[in-house]
Amino acid sequence: MNFEFDERAREMRDRVETFFRTEILPLNPAYRRALKADPAEARAIVRTLQDKARNLGLWNLAVPGLDEDAPGVRLTNLQFAPLAEIMGRLHWASEVFNCHAPDVPNMEVLAKYGTPEQKRRWLAPLLNAEIRSCFGMTEPDVASSDANNIATRIERVGDEFVINGRKWFATAAANPDCRLCVLVGVTDPDAPRGRRHSVVLVPMDSPGLEIVRKIPVFHHVDETSPHTELRLENVRIPVSNLLGKQGEGFAVGQARLGPARIHHCMRAIGTCEVLIQLMYERAGARKTFGRAVIENANVRDMIASSRLELEQCRLMIHRAAWTIDTHGDHAARRDIALIKVAVARAYQAIADRALQIFGAMGVTDDTPVAAAFTQARAFRIYDGPDEVHLRGIFGMEKPGAAGESRFYLS
Amino acid sequence: MNFEFDERAREMRDRVETFFRTEILPLNPAYRRALKADPAEARAIVRTLQDKARNLGLWNLAVPGLDEDAPGVRLTNLQFAPLAEIMGRLHWASEVFNCHAPDVPNMEVLAKYGTPEQKRRWLAPLLNAEIRSCFGMTEPDVASSDANNIATRIERVGDEFVINGRKWFATAAANPDCRLCVLVGVTDPDAPRGRRHSVVLVPMDSPGLEIVRKIPVFHHVDETSPHTELRLENVRIPVSNLLGKQGEGFAVGQARLGPARIHHCMRAIGTCEVLIQLMYERAGARKTFGRAVIENANVRDMIASSRLELEQCRLMIHRAAWTIDTHGDHAARRDIALIKVAVARAYQAIADRALQIFGAMGVTDDTPVAAAFTQARAFRIYDGPDEVHLRGIFGMEKPGAAGESRFYLS
Amino acid sequence: MNFEFDERAREMRDRVETFFRTEILPLNPAYRRALKADPAEARAIVRTLQDKARNLGLWNLAVPGLDEDAPGVRLTNLQFAPLAEIMGRLHWASEVFNCHAPDVPNMEVLAKYGTPEQKRRWLAPLLNAEIRSCFGMTEPDVASSDANNIATRIERVGDEFVINGRKWFATAAANPDCRLCVLVGVTDPDAPRGRRHSVVLVPMDSPGLEIVRKIPVFHHVDETSPHTELRLENVRIPVSNLLGKQGEGFAVGQARLGPARIHHCMRAIGTCEVLIQLMYERAGARKTFGRAVIENANVRDMIASSRLELEQCRLMIHRAAWTIDTHGDHAARRDIALIKVAVARAYQAIADRALQIFGAMGVTDDTPVAAAFTQARAFRIYDGPDEVHLRGIFGMEKPGAAGESRFYLS
Amino acid sequence: MNFEFDERAREMRDRVETFFRTEILPLNPAYRRALKADPAEARAIVRTLQDKARNLGLWNLAVPGLDEDAPGVRLTNLQFAPLAEIMGRLHWASEVFNCHAPDVPNMEVLAKYGTPEQKRRWLAPLLNAEIRSCFGMTEPDVASSDANNIATRIERVGDEFVINGRKWFATAAANPDCRLCVLVGVTDPDAPRGRRHSVVLVPMDSPGLEIVRKIPVFHHVDETSPHTELRLENVRIPVSNLLGKQGEGFAVGQARLGPARIHHCMRAIGTCEVLIQLMYERAGARKTFGRAVIENANVRDMIASSRLELEQCRLMIHRAAWTIDTHGDHAARRDIALIKVAVARAYQAIADRALQIFGAMGVTDDTPVAAAFTQARAFRIYDGPDEVHLRGIFGMEKPGAAGESRFYLS
Repeated sequence: MNFEFDERAREMRDRVETFFRTEILPLNPAYRRALKADPAEARAIVRTLQDKARNLGLWNLAVPGLDEDAPGVRLTNLQFAPLAEIMGRLHWASEVFNCHAPDVPNMEVLAKYGTPEQKRRWLAPLLNAEIRSCFGMTEPDVASSDANNIATRIERVGDEFVINGRKWFATAAANPDCRLCVLVGVTDPDAPRGRRHSVVLVPMDSPGLEIVRKIPVFHHVDETSPHTELRLENVRIPVSNLLGKQGEGFAVGQARLGPARIHHCMRAIGTCEVLIQLMYERAGARKTFGRAVIENANVRDMIASSRLELEQCRLMIHRAAWTIDTHGDHAARRDIALIKVAVARAYQAIADRALQIFGAMGVTDDTPVAAAFTQARAFRIYDGPDEVHLRGIFGMEKPGAAGESRFYLS
Repeated sequence: MNFEFDERAREMRDRVETFFRTEILPLNPAYRRALKADPAEARAIVRTLQDKARNLGLWNLAVPGLDEDAPGVRLTNLQFAPLAEIMGRLHWASEVFNCHAPDVPNMEVLAKYGTPEQKRRWLAPLLNAEIRSCFGMTEPDVASSDANNIATRIERVGDEFVINGRKWFATAAANPDCRLCVLVGVTDPDAPRGRRHSVVLVPMDSPGLEIVRKIPVFHHVDETSPHTELRLENVRIPVSNLLGKQGEGFAVGQARLGPARIHHCMRAIGTCEVLIQLMYERAGARKTFGRAVIENANVRDMIASSRLELEQCRLMIHRAAWTIDTHGDHAARRDIALIKVAVARAYQAIADRALQIFGAMGVTDDTPVAAAFTQARAFRIYDGPDEVHLRGIFGMEKPGAAGESRFYLS
Repeated sequence: MNFEFDERAREMRDRVETFFRTEILPLNPAYRRALKADPAEARAIVRTLQDKARNLGLWNLAVPGLDEDAPGVRLTNLQFAPLAEIMGRLHWASEVFNCHAPDVPNMEVLAKYGTPEQKRRWLAPLLNAEIRSCFGMTEPDVASSDANNIATRIERVGDEFVINGRKWFATAAANPDCRLCVLVGVTDPDAPRGRRHSVVLVPMDSPGLEIVRKIPVFHHVDETSPHTELRLENVRIPVSNLLGKQGEGFAVGQARLGPARIHHCMRAIGTCEVLIQLMYERAGARKTFGRAVIENANVRDMIASSRLELEQCRLMIHRAAWTIDTHGDHAARRDIALIKVAVARAYQAIADRALQIFGAMGVTDDTPVAAAFTQARAFRIYDGPDEVHLRGIFGMEKPGAAGESRFYLS
Repeated sequence: MNFEFDERAREMRDRVETFFRTEILPLNPAYRRALKADPAEARAIVRTLQDKARNLGLWNLAVPGLDEDAPGVRLTNLQFAPLAEIMGRLHWASEVFNCHAPDVPNMEVLAKYGTPEQKRRWLAPLLNAEIRSCFGMTEPDVASSDANNIATRIERVGDEFVINGRKWFATAAANPDCRLCVLVGVTDPDAPRGRRHSVVLVPMDSPGLEIVRKIPVFHHVDETSPHTELRLENVRIPVSNLLGKQGEGFAVGQARLGPARIHHCMRAIGTCEVLIQLMYERAGARKTFGRAVIENANVRDMIASSRLELEQCRLMIHRAAWTIDTHGDHAARRDIALIKVAVARAYQAIADRALQIFGAMGVTDDTPVAAAFTQARAFRIYDGPDEVHLRGIFGMEKPGAAGESRFYLS
């Protein structure tokens, strides 16, 4: 066991840290102004930075399974962890390195399950940041936390699939650059549970695919990666757009969800570092009842508890990443479930404390605290609510590990 | 001791309940559509309902200290409690009965401290819902949870006060009907602590008073009662606009804050009832892993715990109201501090659970859950953060109540 | 609604308070020494105080349903509440007033369901503190939190019942003065659920009734009221020892459990008052890192949060008592369940904080804190675990109270 | 980074696991009976097992800094971690491997700071389990969580130190085999803070050293390692009994506390594994309301949350151990503080849940749950209360790590 990053990871971390501090962070005020004024301006800032990052080889850092000739750096999940943290400090920084969701998980499944033609058409432009993509899984009409409930129908008719259904929380679907929806639906309604669903690739310009709305999340629409509601009415795609095998949609989805979840967790840790720093400084700068707020032991406890929770989560993320790298997605299921619950809880707790310390300013949009707080809260639902992951953790308990119980009890 | 409302309260509660169910609630979908389309339309809906409520005598129910000839029903705080709960089910319902913040607390202080002229000019139109008002206390530049920090300068120059400073979270200041700012500032900077501040009445159309912005709270601007930032530069008002005595601003403010806080708490309880009802129904309507969500014991615990917290808060609110009615604001200080902390925590906990049960839909604006969640979170800061009230509660501990400690310890 | 005790309650409270401070509390050190040296000495102290209390008319204060000629003060549950709190400050004080468990709940059911002969034989000596009694409900072999599981067999054979089974946590059964076990068992195994159990009166000297052991609770045996394990093998009692009707054991038990639970809650509040007082003083008397422990805001928050939780519980207990008095046990079921959960949680939380503030001394037996902490923890299990009461609270939810949900959701 | 134990650790873990399962655990019922009947019998069981363990080379596994010729296995702290976990399943198992507190931390400081003569006299017999030792730090008269408060006076008089003071929670001091007290006191009262204290070696048979009592902890006296109160009146020891340099007592103490704390944490994790296993099985074996307790989602959540907390703590312990091994005690201060808080909290939470699931049986001494619960609670105070460690964690915050805050805030 060893808790030091290898040289490759340390070197890349230092390079990304420098790039973040010198190129990205100072542009944050400009980016935020641009986003309010005109999303296209904000995109222009990102594109300029993307060119710089790509030129420095800080590009496609998060997809370990790329083909040899694909552009990108084949970091392991573990090596990517400290980089993702840095990117997570600003919600728009990942895209600068083409390491953002949901494109990266989509790249992952395309790299793993895609045919050469699928890769050429979708993976290549994604790796070049020429297009965006989305993932159509969650549905408004069913409790999607049980994936078996997913009802969108993908019916084979001749050489085509005909798709009917509703999806929401398809992140970035309404981004003007989005060209692809990786979509989960039912191809085999009469198969046994777990064998009914498949994944298909649906071009966003398919007739019958309608963008219903950008969904406000806690009153907020993210103009870059809007959570989007889609309606699919008799959308037709060629059968060659099947990704992976028919009826194995959950396996494809799982391959996608592991990295998706772990990257979200890594980024959340980065946001939490920012929150701790900001609350530390804010508490030092304000006075009440005759002394600096930070002189109060309850405020210090808030900061120390945040540090504690963050460190625990970070370590567990590292182990989960290592497990994926070393033993594969399936072996990492428990670790992924554990970090999903732990990070979401810690994120919410830390953002809650930061908000309290910021007081009235904390609920405004003058600081990143309010957005962090609502994102943290949503994070306890996205990618599966706590309860579903706890259910999974329970299911993986292996009794008897401590020896025969009767000897403890008599 | 007796836990039944008196007949007057029960009768008024039944009448408000009926009015709410038959007149207000069915218009909620229309109101919400109107608010998005055009705030003026929404105001029109409210005005129509206000006329109906006034005609039925369901008007000015929350100001016990009215002069005899003023229009309104002189309910006690305790009698008003169950009515406020009903109104709290919808964030816009209080206004229908002219029982909304911050106008009611402003009416309270005008009724208590106002000169006949001040009452004629400001209280009368407020009681008739002809104008709106705001309260200028919190400031962006200082930690306002310690009221001694409030720095806006009110300087006497001849027969006028000249005011300079910044205020924010002046709720409803940017409402087009707002005519009056009840403002706290420093008149006597060299007086002892606690004697430096005064309250003045500032017409909103005073030259030098500028509305800087409507502040988004968790990304949301309430168009009816926007939290507003104000700048005051050499704003001049006649000295006759002093409310109460000079240097006694905190006493005036306290008279205002008691009712303000308790009404907020009462309404929050009403919102919580809605949340419990909605989560109960939602959990009954969705299925995961082969059974209704509500069949899960953890979900049932969420509902039962919410019920427990709500009932505890409700009771304590009733006692606080009774204490104000019977023994006055000062005697009720501890009860007010207790409910402020307890209700804010319970509100956040209940809204958090409702959100979790609603899943993805919970974070959208398709239900009232997301707004409740963010309001609940802000409520732990508004009217004084938890920490300040806990500080106050600690300060009111009276040791020795259980007898001499040495007999317990030896 | 009214939050003041009536004159009778206030007068009795003052008298009990005075008696407690002048007669009981100063003897606490002596009592504790006696208890360690020889339980008989401790009983002698109690008996002397009992005589004084009885002479002052401070006797049998907790049994509202006494016959007219029975000795005692017929206070309502609500009037008894502040008295029970005072008694709860010391675990042995209730017995001084003959207001202790499990005798009082047993007196209650005897008064309500007993035949004249049963009253003469058992109730009279209990009211005179000539004997003690116990309650045999919980069984080691089944999860007794579901009362339907109770398996002890009470079989009718001729004019006798023959009893076989095991009981534990029969509090005070091993007290040398205990003469009676009020016992729940199955008389009608083939009846529908809820109609199988009956309550019988079993003399402790019945052949076949064996005291297996005094059960240590968190390593501690209460020599006065030891939790006791009993074995019953072919214990024979006359059929006239049936209490209430056959098959209605749960109704009898419920009549007993309401008061039992509410009295425990009242006393727990009294203990919590002591804990708050002690932690306040301890934190004021110790210094770390250059200042008194109580100067730390986190310590102040611990005290203030304890106050908050205590006040919420106290109020809810008062309402529950009032509901029993006014509307009966059945109407009070929800209130009883609410206080059982709330008080147990608050008690544990407050004792936990007191312990933390006392540091190492807190875990010793030099203060009442350690015993309070373990009693509090056990209280979350005794009289039904939290989970069972939450289940009950959930079951009493009445949806629809806030109006039609569809108007909130569209 | 790498999350797999090295081969040495895995091999030793397997050997200790086997020894534990085949030799130790099956004797647990006998050991518990012996302990109640006669502590000497229990010691005999341990001694027999000690001989077996020593013969197998499973001896002195926890002292990495041994001299070359000393008997023992020089495992790193990290390699020892999984072994300590196994030992932690039973509170008496560590001693079988001579890996128990407080002897191991005492061995550590003797190995590090002892003179050859001190090592010969004290370390050698400790390594052979011929004697026991204790540590005299905490004092009843001061808040010892701030070590500067420690007041026991060690005054130099000629060639001797004369010691006066009171100590308590000197674990195992009253064990009949205890021969040595490693004692902290003030040698230089006029030196600057942090330079006043020294550590001395006090033979337990020194005239003037009196064992005042075995302190019951939550009513329980551990007969093997009793927490002991000592009085020292003019105790005289030669100056050669100074351990380390005069005035550097805190440095010596720190060297001792790191391993002491981390080993306690490792063992606590082992106890938690037992608790999770037991609650899993208990919940599977009991039925309420028509189904197995474990079918309830709230119970499953209790188990899954326990798993989550345990895994987070285990990982953080491993990193702390690795940091000590790789970078030394000083570098590991934050990690030690983090695990101390996290493990104590998790331990209490897990024991609390296990207790709740066991119901009434949980509070008895029929299972290890009650003892675990009280030990867990005490653990939040032993080795420094949570608050002191959080204070330390706060003090080690390094602001600015996320880049310049102004770019986040504008």
